[in-house]
Amino acid sequence: MTAQPDQNPAQADRIIISVDAMGGDNGPAAVVAGIAKSADKNPEIGFILHGPEAELRELVAKRTILNDRVLYRNTTDVVTMKDKPRDVMRNGKGTSMWSALESMSNGEAAGVVSCGNTGALMALSVIRLRKLPGVNRPAIAILFPSRNPQGFTLMLDAGADIRADERDLLQYALMGASYARNGLELSHPRVGLLNVGTEEHKGRSELKDAHGLIAGFAEQANFEFVGFVEGSDIPGKVADVIVTDGFTGNVAIKTGEGTARLIASLLREAFKYSFLSRLASVLAITSMGRLKKRIDPRRVNGGVFLGLNGTVIKSHGSADATGVSAAVKLAFQLAKTGFSEKLAARVASTVELAQDAPEPPDDTAEQQEEEKGQA
Amino acid sequence: MTAQPDQNPAQADRIIISVDAMGGDNGPAAVVAGIAKSADKNPEIGFILHGPEAELRELVAKRTILNDRVLYRNTTDVVTMKDKPRDVMRNGKGTSMWSALESMSNGEAAGVVSCGNTGALMALSVIRLRKLPGVNRPAIAILFPSRNPQGFTLMLDAGADIRADERDLLQYALMGASYARNGLELSHPRVGLLNVGTEEHKGRSELKDAHGLIAGFAEQANFEFVGFVEGSDIPGKVADVIVTDGFTGNVAIKTGEGTARLIASLLREAFKYSFLSRLASVLAITSMGRLKKRIDPRRVNGGVFLGLNGTVIKSHGSADATGVSAAVKLAFQLAKTGFSEKLAARVASTVELAQDAPEPPDDTAEQQEEEKGQA
Repeated sequence: MTAQPDQNPAQADRIIISVDAMGGDNGPAAVVAGIAKSADKNPEIGFILHGPEAELRELVAKRTILNDRVLYRNTTDVVTMKDKPRDVMRNGKGTSMWSALESMSNGEAAGVVSCGNTGALMALSVIRLRKLPGVNRPAIAILFPSRNPQGFTLMLDAGADIRADERDLLQYALMGASYARNGLELSHPRVGLLNVGTEEHKGRSELKDAHGLIAGFAEQANFEFVGFVEGSDIPGKVADVIVTDGFTGNVAIKTGEGTARLIASLLREAFKYSFLSRLASVLAITSMGRLKKRIDPRRVNGGVFLGLNGTVIKSHGSADATGVSAAVKLAFQLAKTGFSEKLAARVASTVELAQDAPEPPDDTAEQQEEEKGQA
Repeated sequence: MTAQPDQNPAQADRIIISVDAMGGDNGPAAVVAGIAKSADKNPEIGFILHGPEAELRELVAKRTILNDRVLYRNTTDVVTMKDKPRDVMRNGKGTSMWSALESMSNGEAAGVVSCGNTGALMALSVIRLRKLPGVNRPAIAILFPSRNPQGFTLMLDAGADIRADERDLLQYALMGASYARNGLELSHPRVGLLNVGTEEHKGRSELKDAHGLIAGFAEQANFEFVGFVEGSDIPGKVADVIVTDGFTGNVAIKTGEGTARLIASLLREAFKYSFLSRLASVLAITSMGRLKKRIDPRRVNGGVFLGLNGTVIKSHGSADATGVSAAVKLAFQLAKTGFSEKLAARVASTVELAQDAPEPPDDTAEQQEEEKGQA
């Protein structure tokens, strides 16, 4: 999809990304700096910016690279980080977030980027874009630094929904594998199901059921199912895609991020300790720079909402220009590969089969007994 | 409790720790090396070793520090990491693990240490030691490196049970706070409840109910309730004790551990990159050593089983001498402070009140709707 020619002829051959300029911790200045960065690197991108037009025009005017590449949708309301999704769903029509989604649902843009409130963005996305047929719970997919050759593991759901049953987990596996093929260029991704152990008798009953369902679709959906994986495999190398419910996924990535921050701060302390260690730290600057770049969350900024009619990228609330630019790049890539359409086709081709699959058996007393104390 | 005088007079004034010599990845040699280390540091500890007696006697004979400080219980069976807890419960009577627990339940020892299969150890512990009155699900508490002044956050349940309802989470809060007072010398520990956000409207319904229950007991049980915390707070500094179900807890700590290992390996790579970085790494050795010591899991090796009549320490399966020694030290400390008895009293004093607490309301449709998409 490209911009409607009557709005801005210069945009006609560009892929248009709809950007919510408000709601991030660093305000619209960081967002405009980010899109300027993207515009500089990639002549194929154009933008629709949503927020207070006068303020945005002023910020854009300072970046000559953005000349003729930005359309505006003036909005006055902003979704804050404190707003409850339920309230935003009721009263959010005047917000920049709503407007940003509107530009995709009406065909003006091929992708949406927002740094705002995750819960509100997901809630509004479901209203404005609708779920793909066959998808019960959309998911947020994130990239976590790992030992995989590509440097990352794709993890979903990172927190769109606090629950997931075995059918949802199957959908996550299908969507995650499809994203890995289109977004990460992995032709035959390895998919793992997060559990407290790799033995097949372990874990909650819905995980055992999901294990069977996902295994049954692996060949048809062109991925390798590696079975149960553990938390340590998220930064590991046994799976390209790891599937879990949004509660567990959210806690896991936040624990991993917190651990990385703890180590970074302890490293700084360690290097301050003595003259020799301060000298070492000077010599180590480039090494540390390489390491930092390798695990810099800004490089892979952006959770992708999967399971909707269209591509929505949730950028970190604290994203700076680099982070916003990475999110825009991701939205562009996915739009260019036609990911959204491919995913819809993939889910549609399997949903019928999934619905025909035998119902998972009810928990028996024996299963429940077995589950206790085995984690 | 001390050893029965008729068995070994030299042990009479020592605190006896019952040690399962088998089932760890490094075999009985690592276990014997570990208890020798503990014996060397602490003249007040004595041991009962469980396993093939002839083999153990040979290993012990090489360590003069262990002269007269070890009793033996000959066993021939071993619980392996592959064994299912259910099978061990049925057929485990001849194992070193069973025997190690037996020595505590019959009063010979004041604490148990095992490097073996966690699920089996918990299952046998529940059979041999019984749960404390008022405790529904025992929990495993672990120490995770953090920014707290004491250097660690106590987290439970780390994987004893894959489920926990609001009453269980209350018990975890009480047990965790009691352990923090006795094991970590924190007189008024800060307790947090793990969730996907800190706002009170977020998360699963049992978490909202647990929030109310725990808040209601904080004053009486002498801890500060800091409310909901997130995964990033496990390595953080807002809470001394973090409470969650064993599924989430297990995934969280494994993700954190995996992240730490990833960073360590990337650091090694970064320092190999060029001549300058190799030079820096030589100068940084002591700094790195300090950092490594700070977050070395072996220093705080040992998950503590809480909610049983007696102290059981689960050491890492891969524990070496340092790890085993740390687990023995923890068992000794907890025995010496009379932790087990204090915990029993604490739980007993609150269980009646908890039972009198009003039943949490059923989920309403509105609550369920609110929970969706808010993570």
